[in-house]
Amino acid sequence: MAATTARRPVVRFTVNGSAAGPVSRPDTLAVEEPLEIRLGSGGAHSALPADPFTVTMRTPGHDLELALGFLVAEGVVRSASDVISARHCPDAARDADGQPTHNVVEVFLRPGVTVPDDRHRAVSSACGICGTTSIDAVRTHSSHTVADDPVRVPGDVLAALPDRLRAAQRVFDRTGGLHAAGLFTPAGELVVLREDVGRHNAVDKVVGWAFQRGLLPLRGHVLQVSGRASFELVQKAWTAGAPVLAAVSAPSSLAVDLAVEAGLTLVGFSRGESFNVYAGAHRVAG
Amino acid sequence: MAATTARRPVVRFTVNGSAAGPVSRPDTLAVEEPLEIRLGSGGAHSALPADPFTVTMRTPGHDLELALGFLVAEGVVRSASDVISARHCPDAARDADGQPTHNVVEVFLRPGVTVPDDRHRAVSSACGICGTTSIDAVRTHSSHTVADDPVRVPGDVLAALPDRLRAAQRVFDRTGGLHAAGLFTPAGELVVLREDVGRHNAVDKVVGWAFQRGLLPLRGHVLQVSGRASFELVQKAWTAGAPVLAAVSAPSSLAVDLAVEAGLTLVGFSRGESFNVYAGAHRVAG
Repeated sequence: MAATTARRPVVRFTVNGSAAGPVSRPDTLAVEEPLEIRLGSGGAHSALPADPFTVTMRTPGHDLELALGFLVAEGVVRSASDVISARHCPDAARDADGQPTHNVVEVFLRPGVTVPDDRHRAVSSACGICGTTSIDAVRTHSSHTVADDPVRVPGDVLAALPDRLRAAQRVFDRTGGLHAAGLFTPAGELVVLREDVGRHNAVDKVVGWAFQRGLLPLRGHVLQVSGRASFELVQKAWTAGAPVLAAVSAPSSLAVDLAVEAGLTLVGFSRGESFNVYAGAHRVAG
Repeated sequence: MAATTARRPVVRFTVNGSAAGPVSRPDTLAVEEPLEIRLGSGGAHSALPADPFTVTMRTPGHDLELALGFLVAEGVVRSASDVISARHCPDAARDADGQPTHNVVEVFLRPGVTVPDDRHRAVSSACGICGTTSIDAVRTHSSHTVADDPVRVPGDVLAALPDRLRAAQRVFDRTGGLHAAGLFTPAGELVVLREDVGRHNAVDKVVGWAFQRGLLPLRGHVLQVSGRASFELVQKAWTAGAPVLAAVSAPSSLAVDLAVEAGLTLVGFSRGESFNVYAGAHRVAG
């Protein structure tokens, strides 16, 4: 597996400090590299090569989860049986020294699963008109209903999740620069945690992890994210069938609107002793 | 101009607080809506309609700046003379009540300026192989050299910029949910500030503002952003010709690598009394 952190030299300046000048030292950074996701049909032994579908900037590691979770969010795949195989491309992607990198993933879909021509075009046609149309388009994407999920989560659990997420973040401790997404039970037990330089990638990795294990939809679970709650994250929670999305920071207007539309519980500003609920407050217990 | 904030009902829960139960009240949120950017050739009176190029989720406001700044970053346009006109599409984009929205922008390019087929495909071919190749591709995109920019910025100015950026953010104060990008002189004077739910959009708006006024390249200036420094933000700073990019939080590995490649000064973790310099430390004075 490729490294998730890298060392780079840094010069640290302190203003109004002691008479000491700038200090040079190595610093540990979160790795960011492009991942190209290619889609094919009929298996790796197919005569047809996989075609480029999208490129995302991500932190290496759990790349297959990332690719599969992304495809779930895009509505391309719904269950593990839709995927014949997923692997790092053995031919492409060599670095400057000719060594293989892990920046291309090939996913071969079961015959009959529609391979979209191009991710961008799909997004464009879905979102090009106005917010309302975007929401309608997403609703048709999601194959899971979350509105009827009867789960209830104690308020003290929701308030405590950001600290639990943070405590489980290993790479953040070394770099200060990674987002995280964690899947929790209603009792506040961590099921799986993933980190990435991109908020959406961290969620895709969690969903892809569940997808590989046949655990979708994520009924009865809470998805906790480290940053803000955007429209895109609510969309990803919905397509994964998670009834509760909780964010450490603020949601956007469209995130709230989509959560209301989906019947999804959206929690924001959850910090220690308090939190806000922007949709689906009936799922907060006690 | 469309609203940048919206009110939504929220239920606030406090754990371990007083005996008082959840409190319902309205909350002010940052608006997030899709913006479709369409590209045409030969002017708005052309017989050829503008074609969809990309869709970005953004906070409404300064949409033409956002579109133009994005096109600068993608290497589609380089100077104001490349653009014949930019406007909100008068025909498309009506909301559920049939009212016009402002979620589609048309940019008509001077004949001779190449209109890329599709943004995604361009990104895919640039980033599909490995990090090194991405950097090479970007270097050919940027029409500006920043390595020879002789500007020097006092350390106490760099340390103070995040506070100045934050003080100038009007929407953040009401929502707690917006990123910002600010263009500063080496003396620390704010030239222009833009806010958006997306970090990259805030930078595009600043660059688009400068593009409209013929102020590119941004030689001798500092671009301060509120979040982390990703590869994409360094790329945007470089294509806009800004010699110094400063971020409140951590940079990624590839952001540092690209800054070194470009000869750009990259500042991270700049907070009040100290900051880190990951590339181009020779531009820090005093």
